[in-house]
Amino acid sequence: MLEAKAYGASSADANFGEMTIDRRDLHDIDVKIDILYCGVCHSDIHAKLNDWGNAKYPIVPGHEIIGKVTEVGSKVSKYKVGDLVGVGCMVDSCQECSACEEDMEMWCENGSTSTYNSKDKFLDGHTLGGYSTTIVVREEFVLSVSEDLDIKAVAPLLCAGITTYSPLKHWNIQKGDKVGIVGLGGLGHMGIKFAAAMGAETVMITTSEEKSKDAKRLGADSVIISKDKDQMKEHNNSFDFILNTIPVGHDVNPYLALLKRDKTMCLVGAIEPLENVHGGNLILRRKRLAGSLIGGIKETQEMLDFCAEHNIVSDVEMINMQDIDNAFERVQNSDVKYRFVIDMESLKS
Amino acid sequence: MLEAKAYGASSADANFGEMTIDRRDLHDIDVKIDILYCGVCHSDIHAKLNDWGNAKYPIVPGHEIIGKVTEVGSKVSKYKVGDLVGVGCMVDSCQECSACEEDMEMWCENGSTSTYNSKDKFLDGHTLGGYSTTIVVREEFVLSVSEDLDIKAVAPLLCAGITTYSPLKHWNIQKGDKVGIVGLGGLGHMGIKFAAAMGAETVMITTSEEKSKDAKRLGADSVIISKDKDQMKEHNNSFDFILNTIPVGHDVNPYLALLKRDKTMCLVGAIEPLENVHGGNLILRRKRLAGSLIGGIKETQEMLDFCAEHNIVSDVEMINMQDIDNAFERVQNSDVKYRFVIDMESLKS
Repeated sequence: MLEAKAYGASSADANFGEMTIDRRDLHDIDVKIDILYCGVCHSDIHAKLNDWGNAKYPIVPGHEIIGKVTEVGSKVSKYKVGDLVGVGCMVDSCQECSACEEDMEMWCENGSTSTYNSKDKFLDGHTLGGYSTTIVVREEFVLSVSEDLDIKAVAPLLCAGITTYSPLKHWNIQKGDKVGIVGLGGLGHMGIKFAAAMGAETVMITTSEEKSKDAKRLGADSVIISKDKDQMKEHNNSFDFILNTIPVGHDVNPYLALLKRDKTMCLVGAIEPLENVHGGNLILRRKRLAGSLIGGIKETQEMLDFCAEHNIVSDVEMINMQDIDNAFERVQNSDVKYRFVIDMESLKS
Repeated sequence: MLEAKAYGASSADANFGEMTIDRRDLHDIDVKIDILYCGVCHSDIHAKLNDWGNAKYPIVPGHEIIGKVTEVGSKVSKYKVGDLVGVGCMVDSCQECSACEEDMEMWCENGSTSTYNSKDKFLDGHTLGGYSTTIVVREEFVLSVSEDLDIKAVAPLLCAGITTYSPLKHWNIQKGDKVGIVGLGGLGHMGIKFAAAMGAETVMITTSEEKSKDAKRLGADSVIISKDKDQMKEHNNSFDFILNTIPVGHDVNPYLALLKRDKTMCLVGAIEPLENVHGGNLILRRKRLAGSLIGGIKETQEMLDFCAEHNIVSDVEMINMQDIDNAFERVQNSDVKYRFVIDMESLKS
């Protein structure tokens, strides 16, 4: 067993504190990673607070991991010591079912293993995430990261990046498509960058006038203030795709009205009941309301390669591990542009 | 101007009564039709009662029309006197916009003309439907009907038929696909017939044990009782497509759970707010909730031809025009298997 330092909580109402955790010894298929940076995702807060009712304690969150390979198992062929790598939301899956065979491990029919708070196949208990100095992950779930990017700002790509890239690719966004991004936070700011890089006419749709300027800096061609009914009406039936990143239940009807016939709005944030979705808004013009969850490993690598090619990273604010409670509070108040990343050096020293 | 007998209501709270209406004289592009049969659609009731707030009085409903051609304009080439024809939910559109060019006249960007209760381009006032002895319709909106079918049972195909055929075709239902039909009424019974004829494994999903037998008679391979949670759970993540014909707002979440990843449930009935659609049910396995409305003229003809080839008609109960108030009441009580059709001879005599 391998000891690692970590930051976690022993119960839903406990603050985070430093702890020592067990990582497994290296199997022949594993890569051992010295963690350099770990992004802070809103899911980390939901998990810590047991908002989804499935938290396992002690909980060590973190699924936006960037690090250096320090050791590889005998059967590992893709990575060598010193490589810059990433680990995202999953660390294992059955590798045999139809979902895994189609590179959609997140929907593994036998259940994928999440990076934290999931049953650990190798050790007793549950998986522990990236708020830690070290992690051991099987080769198939390790991503290659370009040295050319600002690597601390690459961390959020492992969750916020793939969550927004995957639906834009799945719905085949092309140059010239009019794409709306609803909500400007950790997910929304990546949605703008990706849609713009794919050549879409990228439109930020936000309640907040003050976010307009920043949306344009991030790459939006224009902004619609969703509270302005006249402005919304002007854009009725005009969008080829809408990526809806609002993280809570809300009224989706005004956004459905913006879609062209046969087009889709995809939810990536609201894992919650939506207010009264009006059937008529789907029936007229055959519109679709869909959802999407992260992406498979192959697509995550494709996304990282796309980012290297287009020089895309997340906008981040760096923190020390010890600042995590304050960072959680600021995430809950939407007070971050646009993602906190923990410098893991702070935990090592 | 051409006088015709009709049955209609002069206000939302008036019962139906016989009236004389004006049809336009034949233009060169028009077909004059002697109406033999007209189906009774739930929309007729909504329109009469002004449930959608847009009723124009006097209202003469009816958009499932079967009749014989009695006269044609000089430019009409597709039809001749004596032909058996149908008219569905639309009688005109601009014929120029992108929707019309793509054979989706129901979404004409300049507004299609509904068979009743729509602004009449030729006469002052609004269009009057098929509860009448005669109708004059431009050639492009007249459908050809096979003499080989039981023609009184063809009438409901013009609305209930195309409404269910179109989404099954659009979502490309193939032999072997597992297709669920939710709700067994005018739409649902046609959904079963079409899905079965397309070679799908057709599953009726209903709250009512007593409907099981009839569903199987209509062509369903099996039945799921939706109130039985264990039965529903057995079928989780197993359907390739679900056609949801429930005509009112309801909880769609249990049905979304039945879909395989990346698959669609299409609403064709509920032009109303749905109870809390849970975003998580779309996000996990990238599922889609969509809607569909009738179909274009080209596809309606294709559907009628498909019916002739597969010997498909609606299950109907024949009534006289004078029985319409009672029929409306029975439709509202779901007491019809599965569609009333008016024998228009009753209005002529």
